[in-house]
Amino acid sequence: MSGNSLGKLFCVTSFGESHGPAIGCVVDGCPPGMPISTQEIQVELDRRKPGTSRHVTQRREPDEVEILSGVFEGVTTGTPIALLIRNQDQRSRDYGNIAETFRPGHADYAYWQKYGIRDHRGGGRSSARETAVRVAAGAIARKWLNQQYGVVIRGFMSQLGPIEIPFVDWDEVGRNPFFAPNASIVPALEDYMDELRKSGDSVGARIDVVASGVPVGWGEPVYDRLDADIAYAMMGINAVKGVEIGAGFSSVAQRGTEHSDEMTPEGFLSNNAGGVLGGISTGQDILVSMAVKPTSSIRLDRRSIDKQGDAVVINTHGRHDPCVGIRATPIAEAMLAIVLMDHALRHRAQCGDVSCATPKLARLAPSGVQRVPAPPR
Amino acid sequence: MSGNSLGKLFCVTSFGESHGPAIGCVVDGCPPGMPISTQEIQVELDRRKPGTSRHVTQRREPDEVEILSGVFEGVTTGTPIALLIRNQDQRSRDYGNIAETFRPGHADYAYWQKYGIRDHRGGGRSSARETAVRVAAGAIARKWLNQQYGVVIRGFMSQLGPIEIPFVDWDEVGRNPFFAPNASIVPALEDYMDELRKSGDSVGARIDVVASGVPVGWGEPVYDRLDADIAYAMMGINAVKGVEIGAGFSSVAQRGTEHSDEMTPEGFLSNNAGGVLGGISTGQDILVSMAVKPTSSIRLDRRSIDKQGDAVVINTHGRHDPCVGIRATPIAEAMLAIVLMDHALRHRAQCGDVSCATPKLARLAPSGVQRVPAPPR
Amino acid sequence: MSGNSLGKLFCVTSFGESHGPAIGCVVDGCPPGMPISTQEIQVELDRRKPGTSRHVTQRREPDEVEILSGVFEGVTTGTPIALLIRNQDQRSRDYGNIAETFRPGHADYAYWQKYGIRDHRGGGRSSARETAVRVAAGAIARKWLNQQYGVVIRGFMSQLGPIEIPFVDWDEVGRNPFFAPNASIVPALEDYMDELRKSGDSVGARIDVVASGVPVGWGEPVYDRLDADIAYAMMGINAVKGVEIGAGFSSVAQRGTEHSDEMTPEGFLSNNAGGVLGGISTGQDILVSMAVKPTSSIRLDRRSIDKQGDAVVINTHGRHDPCVGIRATPIAEAMLAIVLMDHALRHRAQCGDVSCATPKLARLAPSGVQRVPAPPR
Amino acid sequence: MSGNSLGKLFCVTSFGESHGPAIGCVVDGCPPGMPISTQEIQVELDRRKPGTSRHVTQRREPDEVEILSGVFEGVTTGTPIALLIRNQDQRSRDYGNIAETFRPGHADYAYWQKYGIRDHRGGGRSSARETAVRVAAGAIARKWLNQQYGVVIRGFMSQLGPIEIPFVDWDEVGRNPFFAPNASIVPALEDYMDELRKSGDSVGARIDVVASGVPVGWGEPVYDRLDADIAYAMMGINAVKGVEIGAGFSSVAQRGTEHSDEMTPEGFLSNNAGGVLGGISTGQDILVSMAVKPTSSIRLDRRSIDKQGDAVVINTHGRHDPCVGIRATPIAEAMLAIVLMDHALRHRAQCGDVSCATPKLARLAPSGVQRVPAPPR
Repeated sequence: MSGNSLGKLFCVTSFGESHGPAIGCVVDGCPPGMPISTQEIQVELDRRKPGTSRHVTQRREPDEVEILSGVFEGVTTGTPIALLIRNQDQRSRDYGNIAETFRPGHADYAYWQKYGIRDHRGGGRSSARETAVRVAAGAIARKWLNQQYGVVIRGFMSQLGPIEIPFVDWDEVGRNPFFAPNASIVPALEDYMDELRKSGDSVGARIDVVASGVPVGWGEPVYDRLDADIAYAMMGINAVKGVEIGAGFSSVAQRGTEHSDEMTPEGFLSNNAGGVLGGISTGQDILVSMAVKPTSSIRLDRRSIDKQGDAVVINTHGRHDPCVGIRATPIAEAMLAIVLMDHALRHRAQCGDVSCATPKLARLAPSGVQRVPAPPR
Repeated sequence: MSGNSLGKLFCVTSFGESHGPAIGCVVDGCPPGMPISTQEIQVELDRRKPGTSRHVTQRREPDEVEILSGVFEGVTTGTPIALLIRNQDQRSRDYGNIAETFRPGHADYAYWQKYGIRDHRGGGRSSARETAVRVAAGAIARKWLNQQYGVVIRGFMSQLGPIEIPFVDWDEVGRNPFFAPNASIVPALEDYMDELRKSGDSVGARIDVVASGVPVGWGEPVYDRLDADIAYAMMGINAVKGVEIGAGFSSVAQRGTEHSDEMTPEGFLSNNAGGVLGGISTGQDILVSMAVKPTSSIRLDRRSIDKQGDAVVINTHGRHDPCVGIRATPIAEAMLAIVLMDHALRHRAQCGDVSCATPKLARLAPSGVQRVPAPPR
Repeated sequence: MSGNSLGKLFCVTSFGESHGPAIGCVVDGCPPGMPISTQEIQVELDRRKPGTSRHVTQRREPDEVEILSGVFEGVTTGTPIALLIRNQDQRSRDYGNIAETFRPGHADYAYWQKYGIRDHRGGGRSSARETAVRVAAGAIARKWLNQQYGVVIRGFMSQLGPIEIPFVDWDEVGRNPFFAPNASIVPALEDYMDELRKSGDSVGARIDVVASGVPVGWGEPVYDRLDADIAYAMMGINAVKGVEIGAGFSSVAQRGTEHSDEMTPEGFLSNNAGGVLGGISTGQDILVSMAVKPTSSIRLDRRSIDKQGDAVVINTHGRHDPCVGIRATPIAEAMLAIVLMDHALRHRAQCGDVSCATPKLARLAPSGVQRVPAPPR
Repeated sequence: MSGNSLGKLFCVTSFGESHGPAIGCVVDGCPPGMPISTQEIQVELDRRKPGTSRHVTQRREPDEVEILSGVFEGVTTGTPIALLIRNQDQRSRDYGNIAETFRPGHADYAYWQKYGIRDHRGGGRSSARETAVRVAAGAIARKWLNQQYGVVIRGFMSQLGPIEIPFVDWDEVGRNPFFAPNASIVPALEDYMDELRKSGDSVGARIDVVASGVPVGWGEPVYDRLDADIAYAMMGINAVKGVEIGAGFSSVAQRGTEHSDEMTPEGFLSNNAGGVLGGISTGQDILVSMAVKPTSSIRLDRRSIDKQGDAVVINTHGRHDPCVGIRATPIAEAMLAIVLMDHALRHRAQCGDVSCATPKLARLAPSGVQRVPAPPR
């Protein structure tokens, strides 16, 4: 119920600051009896961790996760699963100059006004480092969703700054440091990032996430809609400024005949809805897209103020990602997994395990993994 | 905690179906001592109600609200405020033909799969009629926010189908049936809608909402961020497929030097953040934009299936809005008001009434009511 | 999440004041597909309603319930069920003299200090009249629990003031106005009440509630234990000052060999635990006992103060129950039903519908409907 | 919202098993700006920790707490405070014999039926060891309550098995291992416990807790009443079977003239209400009493069953408290502190910091620290 908890039945409570002793979370509500190991969680953490290419922050954080509770002899017990990640590379001196000033585009000023105090080291609580615990918790959710229902959750970068990245295939996503689903565009991305890094500036990105195999019927019709909770989760990722489901903002200029997905006995004919109608999953792929703003911490001079309200010029020379979007794909996947798992449990609570409707309609197959039609951006 | 409740401390629990006896809600957590009358709530309801122009549904619903509790001698007592709106115009026969089939783009199929049963009359619970209670509850929130903090919440239509609507001034918004902030474009909108209605098709829209006067410091840094809760609330409005805060999806192609809003002792120099940094309000205007999809119920033939899974052709001849976006502005305003009020109370709980920071920084004035820069759509 | 909501998945949100237009509630989270009628709810309401004997308040309230939503063609749809009870007998003049003073033992003073305002008519929100909506919501819960799992929830009065009421049989409970499970003691209760009423004083009571047929495994091990939530629900009934599970306060003087219920292949040999161990149901009867304090509103002179803090003498001549415990049995049953239903859904969410353990242990039968051993009061 | 979280605004999420790597909690919602140190938390933990006298378990657990987050330079930041206590003395072999059988009176059987799996080592999650984290979290709450409002929370043992312990003075409580407020009775308690330990049996206890200085107005009138939440918190402590507020079960036999606390300009004349009327604090002392059952793990032979449902004879030779009530006082204090802090924040959210009523009534002073009248037990 607190502001640092996510989910109602599969509930992740997060803690920790970038340069404190540790970050971590408590995952409450996980069903008992599922095998889970630190290795399985570590695999996901390693996809997000810093220092894996020259295009991301060079902070050295092994991000090694420890399971403190809730798993006995390799199997979940149904009690809270506490996950702990000790911080290793805490060069606080890098951040000494920001204690008295506010960085433009950063949470510094808002935190300080809210609390009257802040842990300024590396952004403290507002650091993207906190997202590691989401990835760890998400690893549990995606395993359960996959085991129980065959749900597969995958994301990719669909735009880096001005460069759109047409979807080609899923296999490529894991082969380049950008999570780009398109091998031919990777050199352009590399060049763009090298130049950007040299300039000292930063840039935004667009990330798409797709959940396949989600059963029809998850979600709630009003307020806690599946898409509303997804929007909440995605907008709750650091630096995200926009969220779309299915056709998203493209639907503004669409006509009803174009947007509404027709149904046939063989399935839906399109997926403008993005797999959600009336807040409830339709059995089609869940299609989510999000906008990640450019990193606020840049080397270039920016006008700002200090704690006394006086004008200062500020620049940030710590180890920062020039595009936070590059490491955002595993985070978006994790957030989607957590939301889906929460709704899986909520659905099971109210409606039971057995689907209510006739099997014939199960023929309504997902129409594919891509946004249909692709939004004309 | 239930799926039909919105907000944690200012908590709106909604009930009711389109063609049942009534719709309504319980507003819990409202501070005591605020004068409120049915008239004040009715004013907001009348802005949303059907039948006010030829461009919206001709259903005749006076939408008269009754206060059942929580107000004594014209003043809130701190106990739950129950609001009741009886349904009047329940021509169920209009909807008889949809009991056995599923309308494309509509929640029919998902409801039926989820619950194994549905009240099909007028969409039942999934009807946009439910949004009336949000407007009613929002009227309470916006009055309190205005009295207590001077917060003003206003929305407008910024795009109707393919027609962008440049912002001119707030006064115009209330003078035309589209909530368009631009008198010169209204004739074009009228023509477009007349033609659309004739064609039997429907279209989407974009709605922008702005909250001015929000104090710095509202929100939570992780998960329950102010912008995350706004995204949840907006995506929770029927037919919404996308939400942006500040620069939104435009931030994908922005550089850090362009996006991050510089600060001076006189205030922020831009508002790409849309008034929220790190999940916390900055004191600038809160800028929200949302995409409303085209109405799913149209007169034109569409392929679909029936409960047996067999192919059917369906069209809908009831009284439907050809563009649900036209009546969406008061709803979006209400949802933003409810979220802000909830966070106002949450902030007061944790941090007290008195702002923590020095007064000097209060000089950081909002940079204006419009999105800066306007997104290049 | 609000203070007027009860339950996490089966969630009852209550509203209304004693002498306002209406009381009612929204029941959210009820599974779809259950037949329910106003008649079935009315049966329970009639057990609690005033004016049924000379021993309770003579206020004339038919307490007729209207279902406003969530039920279609006689069956729950899974959407919120709103229940409305209009107030009929609102003789506000009876209460005019208490607007400026505070009644000893009543919530007047605390309300006024909390909110700075109160609806004093008939106690306003603090009136026991609000418990009608709990009974109405409880009727839905008990029907579902019975249909789904065969759970039976029954209560009785086990003590009236100084008179202990030994349990004889369930059938007698419905035959006398006291809910006493013992026909031979009823004349003594009648005499006691007649004398009490004449004296102008009031008295307390003890109510026991038993839930039979509760499956093993409901509850949560820490904090939201089944017994903790029961304690919360019972202490949340007006005038309740104490709650016991199983042996309750008798366990203070017990030894481990006496208290801990031994198990055999044929079942438990006693039920000191009251059907809950480690916060989780054991499959034995759930045994709950609660203390109801004497009515605060009495005809006799009492010292108090007025809003100016000056000394006054106050007595209350409205229509009040001389023993609020007499009508408390249906309320206690309803509260237990709501808590059990909530935990039934929570259990189903996390652990699924199918019991995990081997069938052999199902032989562990409940050891009986009575508290074993009966507490030496 | 999860079952392992306590409190809505001051929210404690607990994790950990008795013999896993660690136990701990996340405290979310603590106001910023309060100085807090591990030492201050350790003081409370040391009051509860095992091995401090021959009358409690001899398990050697230093219970050293580490603050992982939420405190910067010795001051709370408003972000989640994670507390970690590593388990040291994990002699799992002591518990090997219970993996296949169920101990009477213990949570074994219920856990296993619920989850189909359990961490049997030392009771796993159901171990009273988990209560250490409540004490740690409570230390934060009590400090804030005291700093902000002058609230003082103190508990004592009022009965050990058959021996009633008349209250004499607070100073004595900290001087004996029983938390008995009465020096003269301590030798009798020592003798009783020595004999009990020798016999291999266990015994129950009664614990009273008093909160002084609680401002008038905290609580909610319906459902989330202050006393309901206290009952939930106390019944949520391991081994508790009954909870009373104020006169508790004594109020059953009281008359209204006896029970209802009269008011004068100088204050209340008695405190049968236990400081709560209508679910809201009155400014009098909050008086809580709870029954702790005898320890279930005893050395004496008991009949039980194993996982196959076959009859076994079981006894427990690990290191167990012969009376878990002896160490329960700091836990009860902590739980009361957490509930009060939660309601302090909730009250501040809805009603603001400033009391609504006139100062004159502040004269209504608490009538003393003891239950008035003492319950005739």
